[in-house]
Amino acid sequence: MRKNDLVLVPVLWLTIFTISGHATETNPGNSATLSPATEECISCHIAVSPGIVADWEKSRHAQTNPREAKKQTGLESKLSSDKIPEKLLDYAVGCSECHTMNFDKHRDTFDHNGYAVHVVVTPLDCSTCHSIEAKQFSENLMSHAHVNLVRNSLYKDFTESVNGVQTFEDMKISVQPSDSETNADSCLFCHGTAVEVTGSVSKDTDLGEMTFPILTGWPNQGVGRLNPDGSQGSCAACHARHQFSIEMARKPYTCAECHKGPDVPAYKVYGVSKHGNIYSSLNKDWDFKRVPWTLGKDFTSPTCAACHLSLIVDEEGQVVAERSHQMNDRLPWRIFGLIYAHPHPISADLTDIKNKEGLPLPTEFSGQPVKQFLIGTDEQFKRKKTMQKICLACHGSSWVDGHWARFENTIKTTNEMTLTATKILELAWAKGLAKGLAQNDSLFNESIEKKWIEQWLFFANSTRFSSAMCGGDYGVFENGRWSLSKNISDMTNWLEIHMAVTK
Amino acid sequence: MRKNDLVLVPVLWLTIFTISGHATETNPGNSATLSPATEECISCHIAVSPGIVADWEKSRHAQTNPREAKKQTGLESKLSSDKIPEKLLDYAVGCSECHTMNFDKHRDTFDHNGYAVHVVVTPLDCSTCHSIEAKQFSENLMSHAHVNLVRNSLYKDFTESVNGVQTFEDMKISVQPSDSETNADSCLFCHGTAVEVTGSVSKDTDLGEMTFPILTGWPNQGVGRLNPDGSQGSCAACHARHQFSIEMARKPYTCAECHKGPDVPAYKVYGVSKHGNIYSSLNKDWDFKRVPWTLGKDFTSPTCAACHLSLIVDEEGQVVAERSHQMNDRLPWRIFGLIYAHPHPISADLTDIKNKEGLPLPTEFSGQPVKQFLIGTDEQFKRKKTMQKICLACHGSSWVDGHWARFENTIKTTNEMTLTATKILELAWAKGLAKGLAQNDSLFNESIEKKWIEQWLFFANSTRFSSAMCGGDYGVFENGRWSLSKNISDMTNWLEIHMAVTK
Amino acid sequence: MRKNDLVLVPVLWLTIFTISGHATETNPGNSATLSPATEECISCHIAVSPGIVADWEKSRHAQTNPREAKKQTGLESKLSSDKIPEKLLDYAVGCSECHTMNFDKHRDTFDHNGYAVHVVVTPLDCSTCHSIEAKQFSENLMSHAHVNLVRNSLYKDFTESVNGVQTFEDMKISVQPSDSETNADSCLFCHGTAVEVTGSVSKDTDLGEMTFPILTGWPNQGVGRLNPDGSQGSCAACHARHQFSIEMARKPYTCAECHKGPDVPAYKVYGVSKHGNIYSSLNKDWDFKRVPWTLGKDFTSPTCAACHLSLIVDEEGQVVAERSHQMNDRLPWRIFGLIYAHPHPISADLTDIKNKEGLPLPTEFSGQPVKQFLIGTDEQFKRKKTMQKICLACHGSSWVDGHWARFENTIKTTNEMTLTATKILELAWAKGLAKGLAQNDSLFNESIEKKWIEQWLFFANSTRFSSAMCGGDYGVFENGRWSLSKNISDMTNWLEIHMAVTK
Repeated sequence: MRKNDLVLVPVLWLTIFTISGHATETNPGNSATLSPATEECISCHIAVSPGIVADWEKSRHAQTNPREAKKQTGLESKLSSDKIPEKLLDYAVGCSECHTMNFDKHRDTFDHNGYAVHVVVTPLDCSTCHSIEAKQFSENLMSHAHVNLVRNSLYKDFTESVNGVQTFEDMKISVQPSDSETNADSCLFCHGTAVEVTGSVSKDTDLGEMTFPILTGWPNQGVGRLNPDGSQGSCAACHARHQFSIEMARKPYTCAECHKGPDVPAYKVYGVSKHGNIYSSLNKDWDFKRVPWTLGKDFTSPTCAACHLSLIVDEEGQVVAERSHQMNDRLPWRIFGLIYAHPHPISADLTDIKNKEGLPLPTEFSGQPVKQFLIGTDEQFKRKKTMQKICLACHGSSWVDGHWARFENTIKTTNEMTLTATKILELAWAKGLAKGLAQNDSLFNESIEKKWIEQWLFFANSTRFSSAMCGGDYGVFENGRWSLSKNISDMTNWLEIHMAVTK
Repeated sequence: MRKNDLVLVPVLWLTIFTISGHATETNPGNSATLSPATEECISCHIAVSPGIVADWEKSRHAQTNPREAKKQTGLESKLSSDKIPEKLLDYAVGCSECHTMNFDKHRDTFDHNGYAVHVVVTPLDCSTCHSIEAKQFSENLMSHAHVNLVRNSLYKDFTESVNGVQTFEDMKISVQPSDSETNADSCLFCHGTAVEVTGSVSKDTDLGEMTFPILTGWPNQGVGRLNPDGSQGSCAACHARHQFSIEMARKPYTCAECHKGPDVPAYKVYGVSKHGNIYSSLNKDWDFKRVPWTLGKDFTSPTCAACHLSLIVDEEGQVVAERSHQMNDRLPWRIFGLIYAHPHPISADLTDIKNKEGLPLPTEFSGQPVKQFLIGTDEQFKRKKTMQKICLACHGSSWVDGHWARFENTIKTTNEMTLTATKILELAWAKGLAKGLAQNDSLFNESIEKKWIEQWLFFANSTRFSSAMCGGDYGVFENGRWSLSKNISDMTNWLEIHMAVTK
Repeated sequence: MRKNDLVLVPVLWLTIFTISGHATETNPGNSATLSPATEECISCHIAVSPGIVADWEKSRHAQTNPREAKKQTGLESKLSSDKIPEKLLDYAVGCSECHTMNFDKHRDTFDHNGYAVHVVVTPLDCSTCHSIEAKQFSENLMSHAHVNLVRNSLYKDFTESVNGVQTFEDMKISVQPSDSETNADSCLFCHGTAVEVTGSVSKDTDLGEMTFPILTGWPNQGVGRLNPDGSQGSCAACHARHQFSIEMARKPYTCAECHKGPDVPAYKVYGVSKHGNIYSSLNKDWDFKRVPWTLGKDFTSPTCAACHLSLIVDEEGQVVAERSHQMNDRLPWRIFGLIYAHPHPISADLTDIKNKEGLPLPTEFSGQPVKQFLIGTDEQFKRKKTMQKICLACHGSSWVDGHWARFENTIKTTNEMTLTATKILELAWAKGLAKGLAQNDSLFNESIEKKWIEQWLFFANSTRFSSAMCGGDYGVFENGRWSLSKNISDMTNWLEIHMAVTK
């Protein structure tokens, strides 16, 4: 992996020499030996980016090595790859191990003091030791969050209507094409940018002049990021660098990064649920680091991870839920982001989906699911049972059945309330009060259309999340049924006024 | 309580035999002996619902028994009932103790492996040991939250306008009657459902076929739940099963379950108050389990419970506030949920309240309190003094007086801003732009009416909460005075346009 | 400082005598000796306001004295004043030390059992020991938050339009002048009130009749409070009485008190950022009390204080950022509160600022900065570099550059989106659909004007905070770009309807 020792500038050797004693000490109290390359990284970066180094020192990666880690087997295993390269086995997982991994596949690889370093660590890199998780994640809708957004003509148009600067002249609004900085800061912040190498740049640094690649869409840690090695996603979206603490991934704040807004208020709903209350009140006494995670003992109420992701066992060691980085294998319904809730798509890549009307949507405009792209009732039933097994570990069957009956009723009623809004919108189009599908115009750029969007994207979503996770007011006054019904009144009122005025 | 040992199926005996050693061990390090019945419950449920069992093991209920608990007397007492049945005294408070209690009064009692078990544990059950708290709670408005909502014709109509699915046809919206699943998931989630037994059902379980009651409105933990034993409320609303930790009840997340939305943003206001800041920053060092609760020592800033509920003493052991599950004995004013803030109602049962206009409201439509149903100024003064005694434990009298002067001024000005909105609405009705009281039409189903609702239900409420609890922006830009004044402009604008159009 | 021992009433001597033994004990385990005056305060206040006393006992002020504290020097120093009065050196910093300090300058000084006590402790008082911090804070915009608001004719009018009670008569809204209680409870809650002495009042207390000053604008802890000693600000805004814990000031909840609403959602943005996630998940393991604060060791992600205020060092002891109570020396841009984002003002006192149109604004109505009042590009560059040095302690230069490029692009695009809204408003004024600048009417009191206000005060602000601090959805659907673009549609729609109706 070391490409060219000779280019290493003398001043650096000096630096390394001076503080190399220190480099070893950066791992105090840890049994793991650092690879020579990582020692060299740290010798400079302890001064250049001290925060990263200190943070990493607190990680499990710094404190063990793959050979040691492989001794934990079965449910306790932290590594899922059968074959980990021999040369990695006896060293801590340090800077060099990840940032030079797969260097030949990384278009962002550059020569850095003689090392073939890349900036962007990817799921492909992580899969060296965590192959099953990487594989599962590739089947998770999230890993396709970039392409599913930008390659969908309808959603691409939606993002333009939100991100493009608008100007006003002669009573008309014009929407400028969105710029890449805004897109990266807006939708793609969570969905992930496309990180590409467009050239290189020379910079003066504390250690002399150095050359770095110029990257588009950087920085970014979105779940569906397109990486310079061709892979999709970012493990750091949930496993924050450089501690990569399982404690963080299991706490709800991680999910809140992208799942708190009005379009997907999962974290807020969780916060006011009984589960969230127990978490907030008592989690100081829980053990967030144990693998597997024992319910009732390590934790007494589920976090997001517990229901959607984690390997959970009971005190007898019986598996309640297998670990899943695919996540949707516990989810029969897709309840947000689209016009209508519907059964989960079969494939995580949604770019081929098209309804009868030719729109890239998994339902018709009137709500019927486009069945060939969506899981069937058998698969839905199976996923529901997988999730319910977790519920049943703490709740009786009548409790669980009652809860799910309400949730599925809410899917039905919120879809109906969206359909009503759609009919009002269609009448506005038909009357010429706005321009839509028939006029081949954007669905997202007029006042009445934006009210319609809020019906499904905010209010129906919020109501469904509240119903799914027992969020009380998020199904009523906080963007819930109150807003669904008020919006119908407001849309109808809009229609009445505009019809009266244009008479 | 054991009805019929003989129906116990052999397979269960086997199970019990196999893991009965374990059953005893489920209480490790705890002095309390389990009753034979509870041992039997656990012998199966350790496998069937391991989370509940493990959670309960962490509870005080599992770790002591009433005889031991009664040794703590005076302010330290955890039990308020004089007479606790002899048979309960020497056992931990386990599954059987609560779930077979008052079995003859519970319409949800069913035969479960020979035991007369009921699903829904109620305030009546809890009153066996905690009679004073149950009594106080019965005088708390919350315990009547179900009946006060559904038996009020005006509020019933309001809930229909929110929960009913709406359809749009020929320019008209029709509101369908709300369905029971939606109601349970919406308003009644917090207000409480009516839990009734409608039959029984046989289910295949891991332990063979079993029969369970079919319950309406289940699951539910709303504060005003109508229970199958005739009692009202749910202690689990605040004392989460099955740890029943006083720590939780004293932390603000419990109150947030129902008091965070725009209609009652108490938790959000608290969060940005100085009190909330101190809590969030320093509560890790507080003792949430001590009874009584010593201010300045166990905690250095009040939580919701401290001001509204808890038994508080100072370091000298002097009582600053008596424990109160009635809560409104510390509250002179009722500041949310109704059109105008007003003195607290005398009775917790509000079903008889009627104003001069015949509406089931504690104020006239123009704001005057309907005095015969509300506490007088003497009682208001007494309650204010009770609350202020808590304030004065940390603040000087000029601080406290200044604070209350502002709060009571806010009650006045927010009522005035609501009256202004009411006048605009009445003009809209008078002009025939909407249909209201005079037309015997719903007050809650038209666009202008919904704006009026937000004036009092969201904006006036938020402003008052902010004023009561020092919430800064919740009295200004976050649904506060900004919204109160903007809404007046918007309502007037609505009126102007509609009058112009219909000319 | 003791003015008149002889007026001390006998009953008090008795009290003091009885519990004076206790007074010494109120400082258990602390080495610091109490001054005789503070002992006397506590002798009564231990009973009169036990919460304050107990809270103070937990403070560093109670546990050390200035002479001891001065032994910590260099980066570890907690005191910045060279000359601390000799008489203070050997006593704990107790009641008397602060509440009688500068008694001759305090118009709120009153005779309290023979002591010249004042109620309102001010930055002038704190500067006795913390002079550098007080000086820096005087150059912080926040310390001028009161005067900058109430002495700006435009913003004064804005506050009136929000705080004044509105009445509706003959299709017209009238705004009453705002009352002082409302102002204190609204804008001035955070900006600070003017605390003035208007007389004195005699009160019956547990210790007999006593006389106290009557204060306007009390209580208040706003950052820009006008104090009765002529100073500006309140240290207690961030350093909560009476523990004055640095832990609190370093945690984000302190900033949230004033920076959470839609006008300045810094706390909410932080909460969903990666930084906020790491904080929420892992801060239980951090050390919030160490001075200086070592990044990567004491904390592994910045809080508000870390980036904006704190003295930060790396593990080698190198200073990453100097302590700053001025704060804006790390801020090149002012991104909220005004119509357009712009370079920071030169002076913290903004009362002289005037644009070409004669409006008290730092930009023209079309967005151009009024350069003579604002820092130049050199100073902006310097401040940016100061902030970036903190970023670079954990992030590479391409990361940091990429982040800042996006942030500055967002400043540009949000200003453009505000300009578009301004043009729509100006057309409404020109068409006579609303009355504004040309008509010498308020800019803040009509429906279309309030929509315009939300464009910059809520949506542009939120988008910029999100961009500055990586807040994901706060730049998109949660008051971000979605709202910026929807508002343009709504404003244009408003214009169309009103033009059609008035044709």
